[in-house]
Amino acid sequence: MEGITPEVAMYTVNNLWILVATVLVFIMHLGFASLEAGFVRKKNTVNILFKNCMIIAIGLLTYYAVGFNLMYPGEAFAGGFFGFGGFGLTLPEGDAGGIAYADGAYSYYADFIFQGMFAATCCTIVSGAVAERIKLVPFLVFCTFFVSIAYPITGMWKWGGGWLDAAGFYDFAGSTIVHAVGGFGALAAIILLGARKGKYTDKGINPIPGHSMPLAAIGVFMLWFGWFGFNGGSVLSADAGGVSLVFVTTALAAAGGAVGAFVVAYGMFKTYDLSMVLNGMLGGLVGITAGADQMGPGAAIIIGMVAGCIIPASVVFIDSVLKLDDPVGATSVHLVCGLWGTVAVGLFGDMASMTQVLIQLKGFFAIGIFTFVFAFATIYLLKITVGIRVSEEEEEKGLDVAEHDMIAYQEVEKVTNYDLAVE
Amino acid sequence: MEGITPEVAMYTVNNLWILVATVLVFIMHLGFASLEAGFVRKKNTVNILFKNCMIIAIGLLTYYAVGFNLMYPGEAFAGGFFGFGGFGLTLPEGDAGGIAYADGAYSYYADFIFQGMFAATCCTIVSGAVAERIKLVPFLVFCTFFVSIAYPITGMWKWGGGWLDAAGFYDFAGSTIVHAVGGFGALAAIILLGARKGKYTDKGINPIPGHSMPLAAIGVFMLWFGWFGFNGGSVLSADAGGVSLVFVTTALAAAGGAVGAFVVAYGMFKTYDLSMVLNGMLGGLVGITAGADQMGPGAAIIIGMVAGCIIPASVVFIDSVLKLDDPVGATSVHLVCGLWGTVAVGLFGDMASMTQVLIQLKGFFAIGIFTFVFAFATIYLLKITVGIRVSEEEEEKGLDVAEHDMIAYQEVEKVTNYDLAVE
Amino acid sequence: MEGITPEVAMYTVNNLWILVATVLVFIMHLGFASLEAGFVRKKNTVNILFKNCMIIAIGLLTYYAVGFNLMYPGEAFAGGFFGFGGFGLTLPEGDAGGIAYADGAYSYYADFIFQGMFAATCCTIVSGAVAERIKLVPFLVFCTFFVSIAYPITGMWKWGGGWLDAAGFYDFAGSTIVHAVGGFGALAAIILLGARKGKYTDKGINPIPGHSMPLAAIGVFMLWFGWFGFNGGSVLSADAGGVSLVFVTTALAAAGGAVGAFVVAYGMFKTYDLSMVLNGMLGGLVGITAGADQMGPGAAIIIGMVAGCIIPASVVFIDSVLKLDDPVGATSVHLVCGLWGTVAVGLFGDMASMTQVLIQLKGFFAIGIFTFVFAFATIYLLKITVGIRVSEEEEEKGLDVAEHDMIAYQEVEKVTNYDLAVE
Repeated sequence: MEGITPEVAMYTVNNLWILVATVLVFIMHLGFASLEAGFVRKKNTVNILFKNCMIIAIGLLTYYAVGFNLMYPGEAFAGGFFGFGGFGLTLPEGDAGGIAYADGAYSYYADFIFQGMFAATCCTIVSGAVAERIKLVPFLVFCTFFVSIAYPITGMWKWGGGWLDAAGFYDFAGSTIVHAVGGFGALAAIILLGARKGKYTDKGINPIPGHSMPLAAIGVFMLWFGWFGFNGGSVLSADAGGVSLVFVTTALAAAGGAVGAFVVAYGMFKTYDLSMVLNGMLGGLVGITAGADQMGPGAAIIIGMVAGCIIPASVVFIDSVLKLDDPVGATSVHLVCGLWGTVAVGLFGDMASMTQVLIQLKGFFAIGIFTFVFAFATIYLLKITVGIRVSEEEEEKGLDVAEHDMIAYQEVEKVTNYDLAVE
Repeated sequence: MEGITPEVAMYTVNNLWILVATVLVFIMHLGFASLEAGFVRKKNTVNILFKNCMIIAIGLLTYYAVGFNLMYPGEAFAGGFFGFGGFGLTLPEGDAGGIAYADGAYSYYADFIFQGMFAATCCTIVSGAVAERIKLVPFLVFCTFFVSIAYPITGMWKWGGGWLDAAGFYDFAGSTIVHAVGGFGALAAIILLGARKGKYTDKGINPIPGHSMPLAAIGVFMLWFGWFGFNGGSVLSADAGGVSLVFVTTALAAAGGAVGAFVVAYGMFKTYDLSMVLNGMLGGLVGITAGADQMGPGAAIIIGMVAGCIIPASVVFIDSVLKLDDPVGATSVHLVCGLWGTVAVGLFGDMASMTQVLIQLKGFFAIGIFTFVFAFATIYLLKITVGIRVSEEEEEKGLDVAEHDMIAYQEVEKVTNYDLAVE
Repeated sequence: MEGITPEVAMYTVNNLWILVATVLVFIMHLGFASLEAGFVRKKNTVNILFKNCMIIAIGLLTYYAVGFNLMYPGEAFAGGFFGFGGFGLTLPEGDAGGIAYADGAYSYYADFIFQGMFAATCCTIVSGAVAERIKLVPFLVFCTFFVSIAYPITGMWKWGGGWLDAAGFYDFAGSTIVHAVGGFGALAAIILLGARKGKYTDKGINPIPGHSMPLAAIGVFMLWFGWFGFNGGSVLSADAGGVSLVFVTTALAAAGGAVGAFVVAYGMFKTYDLSMVLNGMLGGLVGITAGADQMGPGAAIIIGMVAGCIIPASVVFIDSVLKLDDPVGATSVHLVCGLWGTVAVGLFGDMASMTQVLIQLKGFFAIGIFTFVFAFATIYLLKITVGIRVSEEEEEKGLDVAEHDMIAYQEVEKVTNYDLAVE
């Protein structure tokens, strides 16, 4: 180990952090799978797990095939709306795996795999909202287009050096670019899909509680756990000051979100509502994501707490007023708190000003409209061709039996029964 | 990336390890939540999950507000019993986020967030012991005082450079300072709270088994996983020799704890008792925590194995002889094995001697008495004012319905029933 | 922090990665525990969790006692079939904890604990295959011998510088050395043990579905999560190019495995089979493990996809044609895909050639035959002495009640019933 330079050591630690952050973002997919499984009915559990398995697979494979080079098409496209750097991984000059890339902070492959883990997230957000009634294959087809085309194009607008970057829009780790994009996709999907059978009736709105609060809680803790990589890795180096600050703001915002949701949910429902507190934590995390590198601890607590307060109000508004059926509250967590987090950068960040607020709104809605239209058109096409909704009978039986011929929890000891019959 | 010095690279890797350790300690809160949920009855599951969500939130927010500056008040207070460095985060001179702090090993923010994750742990320990009968809000009020005042004051006595540090007391990662503190709080709480309804009757002692062994097992594995950060991060740098040794002693002690509990539980109960083995692992981990940096592998195995042997005996003693009702065995794991681990430093550590054993006992009981009195007084005040225990009816129904208007596992497919009724 | 050299900084970051990878490999034991628990019936859940707790404990303790020095006996044994460096940890000259070891990449203790986490894996693989019918103590006795003798001896042949290393055999992170070894142990065990009661009857083959798909899914995500450490840590340094590439190939192979299993399972069963997709991901991971450092992204996808395609075919073949009862599909995942991954190095790796394929096969079968014979002999001896199978009554009742006097899920609220009886 002779002749190591300080630059190589520094490069190695920077790259290592991107990789560790990748692992943390990966496990967010278990977080989403577990949370969504907990919030749906027993009879649709296998289905939601299946979707989450396929989403991470599709997300990584399409990001390899086209997504990465749509999102980071290279400098030739700076300031633009669209660019494409070619299929597969196009190694920059030199040995792209080993040689420092991105100003010595990480390797080309580390960049790809970290960004790839992000990409699949946006579809996972949709999968919760459309749970319990969407047909599996059309959903996976939608995911494939959404994650491989829509997500990287709008992502490029900011992170790939596109027009929103040039316009001064700021979104550190993706309150808009990841979370609101997932949220807009979810919104388009649930409008086209309609509510679950029995949800909105003449006699009023029927709550449909999830089947396992432990699964939901495991999911949220896993998401918070992974979020340290999601936000912390977005520093794009192991810079001690930067990553440490991001850890503090991320954790305090989640804590603030729990407290905000606790208080507002108690005020609204006069009970201590666990699902609101869980979503409040997530709301706080989504809220801080756009400006996690720019806030002091106090501002982070305020941002998280406001996000937590938003959650119960938003969930009730979307459910009761808009009558949009979102089983897991994905639109409230990712779209509404994504909006709040994006705006909060203009209120509390380094460039806080009314001008910045307007720029933030411009970026949010530019990305939002593109995403919504893309998702709506794709799902509409699927709806009028192959259909997107399971039959009433299938929905009644549950998607686990209807689509997977399997149940999530085998209660009956089949063999024993069988033996008894034989004997 | 020109002009990087070796010192900066070293600082970055040290700081990165503190942050990764922070993430690992964070997930211990999922470990506790899952373990405690598994060990309580179905009807109290939402309640225990809710508590664990709020504890991490309260722990972080109060540690930001006052705890950190009570625990590390600065050098002016060296040798003392009490100090306070001011509200919020008081940045040291210079750019506290970015500039090296603590002799170049980590940043100010990394220090705060790592220590903050530790703080909440002590309340989580209490929450398991008081499960299934305590009222939610008084419990959270107790937690707020306990984590923001009691924990940092006694923590300062050693880690903040206080009088126990001056007296030669040694507690590497908190067998006393974290675990026994939680255990003493739990002891005070269960004395004041009384046993669960139906636990101790004229006809004898009634075991009340937990509702999900998979949740309990997930919890324990998550705790061991996080413990690598808990003990490893307590090296306070990424020093290769130090952290590697701590990993070895931590893992071997947990393994020893499993074997010790396996054997003794078999001897006592003539069966292979999973809950004892799970608690044996935790006992081994608590036992090694005080001296994880001072032991060789052989001593670590002995310490862990003894802790594992202690667990079944202690659980039975506390339950049958003391008639104190601790649903998860928190006092045995954290208080009794915390005592063992603290003493073991004097038996196997670098300064092993009878004198050191006495110093260790002095530190343990000094901290223990303060903590116990603080916790007892706080809970007693809550008991005689707002009351700390749910009504018999509420306990019977379960806290999930009584306090949260929710059940953890929705078995009935509500919508289907509803539809059938309508049709 | 004066006088830090770049070499020390580099050593520290390399060592840190080995330690972080250790933590990731550790949590694979939760992955296996959760996966296996999900795939067995409710009545055998405590038993499978118990086994997984004891396996990691036994694995670490025996690896400390003899395994590490059997597997890495030192240079004196290079090229050989057997070597032993002495009991316990034999520190190399100098302060083995702190001083750089292995060309400055990691410390002696880091090496031990990383390798120790690997060792226990091979028994965990067996535990899934023999689930629901093996007696606990004979199984643990088998594990003790298997993990402390068989695994390190064949491991030495390659990783310890033995004869297979000299022969040009390549197995980067253990498709053969870890996974197939576990798979061969499983094969020997299920041949000697026989199928579960009611599995193969005159009326045909009876599927015995697992009791919890969420547990199975949590297990698989945890395994993939840990596999980043399993493969990434096998680079044996934090080298940016090497570890980044391994992350990419590992993740893409898992994604390919999911897609391959999805498609083939649909073709075979005309349904979307979650358990096949879960095992497909694992198959992809096992497949890439032997050559994760040598493949480009495209080859990694192909290797994973082929492994995924193999899974449903292999599961059906072993179950229907060979009539070997493997409740979790461990032989398909670890043995069959281990073979595929080992061969794939000769097809796609740096030394791709027919010669290399033959060398790979030689290594696979040399290790396989030794392992199979060792496992068969050990289990046969246990079978004819103490017996390895629970009685029919115990199997019917379930091992949880029969061996542990405990049930995994306490549905009945005992205390309430008790109270009612008393009142």
